[in-house]
Amino acid sequence: QSSKLPENKTSIFSVMSKMANQHKAINLSQGFPNFETDKKLKKLVTRAMKEGYNQYPPALGVKELREEISKKIKNLYNHTYDPETEICVTAGATQALYSAITAFVLPGDEVIVLKPAYDSYEPTIRLNGGKPVLVQLKGENYEADWDEVRSKISDRTKMLIINTPHNPTGTVLSQEDMQKLEDILKGTNIILLSDEVYEHLIFDGLQHQSAARFPGLAERAIICASFGKTFHNTGWKTGYCVAPKPLMKEIWKVHEITVFSVNHPMQKAYAEYLKTPEPYLELSKFYQKKRDLFLNLISSSRFKCKASSGTYFQLLNYSDITDENDVEFAERLVKEKGLAAIPVSVFNINNKDHKQLRFCFAKTDETLEKAAEILCKL
Amino acid sequence: QSSKLPENKTSIFSVMSKMANQHKAINLSQGFPNFETDKKLKKLVTRAMKEGYNQYPPALGVKELREEISKKIKNLYNHTYDPETEICVTAGATQALYSAITAFVLPGDEVIVLKPAYDSYEPTIRLNGGKPVLVQLKGENYEADWDEVRSKISDRTKMLIINTPHNPTGTVLSQEDMQKLEDILKGTNIILLSDEVYEHLIFDGLQHQSAARFPGLAERAIICASFGKTFHNTGWKTGYCVAPKPLMKEIWKVHEITVFSVNHPMQKAYAEYLKTPEPYLELSKFYQKKRDLFLNLISSSRFKCKASSGTYFQLLNYSDITDENDVEFAERLVKEKGLAAIPVSVFNINNKDHKQLRFCFAKTDETLEKAAEILCKL
Ligand SMILES: CSCCC(=O)C(=O)O
Ligand SMILES: CSCCC(=O)C(=O)O
Repeated sequence: QSSKLPENKTSIFSVMSKMANQHKAINLSQGFPNFETDKKLKKLVTRAMKEGYNQYPPALGVKELREEISKKIKNLYNHTYDPETEICVTAGATQALYSAITAFVLPGDEVIVLKPAYDSYEPTIRLNGGKPVLVQLKGENYEADWDEVRSKISDRTKMLIINTPHNPTGTVLSQEDMQKLEDILKGTNIILLSDEVYEHLIFDGLQHQSAARFPGLAERAIICASFGKTFHNTGWKTGYCVAPKPLMKEIWKVHEITVFSVNHPMQKAYAEYLKTPEPYLELSKFYQKKRDLFLNLISSSRFKCKASSGTYFQLLNYSDITDENDVEFAERLVKEKGLAAIPVSVFNINNKDHKQLRFCFAKTDETLEKAAEILCKL
Repeated sequence: QSSKLPENKTSIFSVMSKMANQHKAINLSQGFPNFETDKKLKKLVTRAMKEGYNQYPPALGVKELREEISKKIKNLYNHTYDPETEICVTAGATQALYSAITAFVLPGDEVIVLKPAYDSYEPTIRLNGGKPVLVQLKGENYEADWDEVRSKISDRTKMLIINTPHNPTGTVLSQEDMQKLEDILKGTNIILLSDEVYEHLIFDGLQHQSAARFPGLAERAIICASFGKTFHNTGWKTGYCVAPKPLMKEIWKVHEITVFSVNHPMQKAYAEYLKTPEPYLELSKFYQKKRDLFLNLISSSRFKCKASSGTYFQLLNYSDITDENDVEFAERLVKEKGLAAIPVSVFNINNKDHKQLRFCFAKTDETLEKAAEILCKL
């Protein structure tokens, strides 16, 4: 059989986590914490199972959960999504991204993607016959060049994908960025796909500029979010997306044939847990400490960096250490030194100039200390 | 925005379950049990969460679970699937079906579908630009007309979809059927997509004829299966598919971008639970009793039927009761009589001749008694 995705290899996240296990390495590659999710949340799952929430939930998500999501967004970003028509609970944010792209991208359509970018966007666009139009983020701060974005818009532009806070660079779009984007999209039919899975991991007093905050963006935006990233349980595979009703109607059609519905006991647990906002409101502080610890611990190393402004990822530049390309260096690091990280070139970055690896600091202090010890010896 | 699936409406299963709730009706529509999954299985989920299996599992599924799946298929159907390269754990069987179709169907490809058929096949084919080629099952026994199937094969035939035991008719393909199919497909490149989610619900001493049993089918078959249907927890949204390595390689690519991976604690629980075969080996006996009870209870009604040979669905013919079409009758039944069932025409059956509704008998005896009481008064 011929392949519809001939260029696709096994995801780097699978490859690196597997190598980390094989070499018993410290795993700072794939984005998940090595500490535990709140016991309270686990108990809520157990309770939901006990109470009998073990059969199909509504395809679009448990009603109370959709209502809590709506309230949370209203409180944080001052925009109202109707729980009945504008919200869909998904099998992780990846499925939200997939369904959003698949619902709209037709053969020949162009999708503008700011690069580097999470590695599922591009194959999803291609699988639908779409054409990714890449715009590189600029400089060591990975800033969006909005003039270039504007220049890439054509009659075929169906969608534009942004991601803030940004994986892998840790940069965060500002209010000014979002206003420029609003201006660029005004009068067009372009759908904005806003990947905001790290919305609650944002540092140094910065504020998350959700597309929901900006009327000119919200009217055309599909926003994807993740419970796994926020509540330390990436393996529960639950996320959601929100969008204006006419867009959501089409996303639902894809959702119903891709997964039909999403794990019922987990949804019940999140619905209850979301009633208390502290866990997600305190998350940035928690992760900023982790970031600061990590950067402190490696301050005497030969790595160079700019502190991450959001996400739980930190890019480190290794150009003072070796001339290897990032894949070679990452492989040597895991095999010989026992530390796994992600080579940034897999995000399709132009990585000739900046030699960088991505490190996940969602780890216990002890793990970060051990990792830093290795990094300081390089 | 224009729609990629203009004809798609909200799934009938969502609509009927919602109506059943609104009208406080007995719900014999959507296919899920109203009794509980094994406590032991719930405890295994709780244990897995406690033991810390709350982060991303391997994208293709937890290793022990893939091994248990492989053993089970070897024991039951005498075919070996390599857990490392030929198995994928999915977010329910629907996602397995979706990924299988999406991995292979290109614009212009034809997919032969035996009708009536589960309502996700057709939109998934269309979403990929494929053309469903429908072959009606024949007579009151809904038999496959293999000569007609053969006559529909063309240069563009990419895939053929079968479903045994069959939703909604409850018919079961025989060894002879499978051998004929083997003969038809010999020498072609056609992929067989075999939906076997009801493999463990088969009655009257019949044996499930998995495509895995037939070498000429197994070499080209993608087999989809469901834990939810087998273990009474459809809301845990976990299933799997198996296929020869070259096919599985392409399915994985779609799987990684649609959901990436599947709920970790549930996978751990199933892996442990599968070590004991009794629960699935005893399932057919359990459901045959339910079927017999239901048929007994309605024997004095004006419905006519042929007993279901598999699945937990029973078709009932209402032509002696009313001239309404099945959607009208189903709506009146739920609104006025408080009983929800599925109008069979949603499976795209030619329902002019046989006026039928589908009833799910995966219900407590008490529920079946109450439902029968209503049915006997019609
Ligand atoms: C689904 S794994 C990829 C997402 C993530 O956590 C990462 O970028 O490492
Ligand atoms: C995902 S709901 C549809 C499957 C099923 O159980 C049914 O046919 O009722």
